[in-house]
Amino acid sequence: MKMLPIAAAVVLAFSVSAPVFANSSVVNTNITESEVLAAQKAWGEALVSISTTYEKQGHAAAKQLAEKVIDSAYGYKYGPVLFKPTLTVAPQTFRTTREGALAYFVGSDPAFPKDTGFALKGWRNVEIKNAAIYITGDVATTMGNVMITDKTGKVTTVDKTWKFRKTDDGKLVIVVHHSSLPFTPQ
Amino acid sequence: MKMLPIAAAVVLAFSVSAPVFANSSVVNTNITESEVLAAQKAWGEALVSISTTYEKQGHAAAKQLAEKVIDSAYGYKYGPVLFKPTLTVAPQTFRTTREGALAYFVGSDPAFPKDTGFALKGWRNVEIKNAAIYITGDVATTMGNVMITDKTGKVTTVDKTWKFRKTDDGKLVIVVHHSSLPFTPQ
Amino acid sequence: MKMLPIAAAVVLAFSVSAPVFANSSVVNTNITESEVLAAQKAWGEALVSISTTYEKQGHAAAKQLAEKVIDSAYGYKYGPVLFKPTLTVAPQTFRTTREGALAYFVGSDPAFPKDTGFALKGWRNVEIKNAAIYITGDVATTMGNVMITDKTGKVTTVDKTWKFRKTDDGKLVIVVHHSSLPFTPQ
Amino acid sequence: MKMLPIAAAVVLAFSVSAPVFANSSVVNTNITESEVLAAQKAWGEALVSISTTYEKQGHAAAKQLAEKVIDSAYGYKYGPVLFKPTLTVAPQTFRTTREGALAYFVGSDPAFPKDTGFALKGWRNVEIKNAAIYITGDVATTMGNVMITDKTGKVTTVDKTWKFRKTDDGKLVIVVHHSSLPFTPQ
Repeated sequence: MKMLPIAAAVVLAFSVSAPVFANSSVVNTNITESEVLAAQKAWGEALVSISTTYEKQGHAAAKQLAEKVIDSAYGYKYGPVLFKPTLTVAPQTFRTTREGALAYFVGSDPAFPKDTGFALKGWRNVEIKNAAIYITGDVATTMGNVMITDKTGKVTTVDKTWKFRKTDDGKLVIVVHHSSLPFTPQ
Repeated sequence: MKMLPIAAAVVLAFSVSAPVFANSSVVNTNITESEVLAAQKAWGEALVSISTTYEKQGHAAAKQLAEKVIDSAYGYKYGPVLFKPTLTVAPQTFRTTREGALAYFVGSDPAFPKDTGFALKGWRNVEIKNAAIYITGDVATTMGNVMITDKTGKVTTVDKTWKFRKTDDGKLVIVVHHSSLPFTPQ
Repeated sequence: MKMLPIAAAVVLAFSVSAPVFANSSVVNTNITESEVLAAQKAWGEALVSISTTYEKQGHAAAKQLAEKVIDSAYGYKYGPVLFKPTLTVAPQTFRTTREGALAYFVGSDPAFPKDTGFALKGWRNVEIKNAAIYITGDVATTMGNVMITDKTGKVTTVDKTWKFRKTDDGKLVIVVHHSSLPFTPQ
Repeated sequence: MKMLPIAAAVVLAFSVSAPVFANSSVVNTNITESEVLAAQKAWGEALVSISTTYEKQGHAAAKQLAEKVIDSAYGYKYGPVLFKPTLTVAPQTFRTTREGALAYFVGSDPAFPKDTGFALKGWRNVEIKNAAIYITGDVATTMGNVMITDKTGKVTTVDKTWKFRKTDDGKLVIVVHHSSLPFTPQ
């Protein structure tokens, strides 16, 4: 063993490449950037899927798919989700329950009379451009623009914040989602 | 609302009493709900302080105070902050740097020509109504409405998401801040 | 964009490789396995350095180095460290203070009369064999054997648990350290 | 110490009341000190229950109870547990699998020939004296002495480190457990 002065030893600690580690097993509950990017991508694909399912198979099929998407992509089964969709208004701005999220995506819920079904609006493509990502433990927050293209080619840009949490089964769920149209100066 | 000088407001944020624990000592890096509520309150008081400092002492004093507020209440010294202020527009929507945050609060920065100084607009009171809070480890995200009253009595309501992190010195800093005007149906 | 059924989209989320991500910056406070392994290695090197410094430069120099090692490698400045050294006995088994750790490493402290200076015992090499590692957020716990060889070639094996925490400045400190000689059946 | 059946002991561990919070709902994945203390207490009660079950109902019943205890009190279903029991020896010192833990507690497993069943040794009371506790996020590490009294009144004291993790269902499981007899100077 080489005799390193302690200053060098401390520096060493943060400059080595990951060694091969044959004899142990590792549990790691942390979320990674690539998991977050993949979950964002899956969200966009799910939105488009709901739109096309609606067009090809009707509202019931779209609603059923939306329920699956909400159950797998959002964390409602762990408690309230901090969801502020793009187009909701007071007094139903925040959709902390699964019912509120479902109404927003597919409408037709008398309890949320102003919802017309955001996911049904003919979406064809979703592009995500993150401004920055903040990772701590099993949660990560992203902020940036999301550009959603509909079947006529029209692009809607929103400012979006997502917070994902990695659950005990290794899946990512959205626990915070704040979406807003860009500010328009009067 | 009482006008607290900023020093007092900052102290307020961390005035939670520690639990008695007779037979051992405890290190706990977690953030608590009461710390979060105090930090929200301190943010509102700081905003009002910048407004009143501007009116009584002018722009230079207001800018100096805003710098102090940003340095103590936001986490820019740890890296980019995910900050989407209420009134910013593309291509400068996201203010991930300290300079961008300062320009938003007090304006007069040629690098951010559209900023007119949000904190200078005569604010007198800030009220916070959380829809829900999500706490994991040393971070907590809040979502809800913030009602800001100006000196004419006019109230501006915004939809706001904040994520606070408790740093190693036990202070809370904002690491995510998404603020938006309520959606207005056409 | 391809129309993926939702099941496929969800699978996608956890099977993609990290994409290049030009336009954003990332803050990540999590600890990694390679950081942990490097910190373990640095601990071993520091122990050997104290031994050789003692032999070449005497006790004062060894003590000074031990103080530097403790201050950089252990988390005493953040609160009590859960340190159960290999050779301590009741009622001073647990060394939750910096003073207790220093006494253990270099002895000569009247407040800890049974300490003879563990780090002064002619150590030449440290080998670490982890049984497993458990990572959550900014902390990671390792458990396994540490084999310490002295200048006569004699190897001492201990059962060791370490918990490291990554602080706000990105450095790793030991916050838990339980070391024990293997059980010897009577 | 009262003899609680294991079901009651397990319930005990999670009987902390939630704080009242009028105007919002809160998700909090963090572990608390009182949860940790309750989980420690439940561990002690479970150990005593296995001993008394063995005496009254025989080995099969004790083994069945031990399996329940391991499944509810340890985190083996999430991956390896870093378990160094008091009395194990190389090359089977570390019990990172459920099988290894069960063999340690009740013996009679040919794969672990030196295990005689630690939990069967007539335990009547467990007292825990923490030196310190270290809490980050959903994990907490305790270090201190555990005094175990058997039916003859003899007290065995061990140095013990436990790390608990709060899982998504709000339960605490042990993910690290390092137990050792006090060092005996020659």
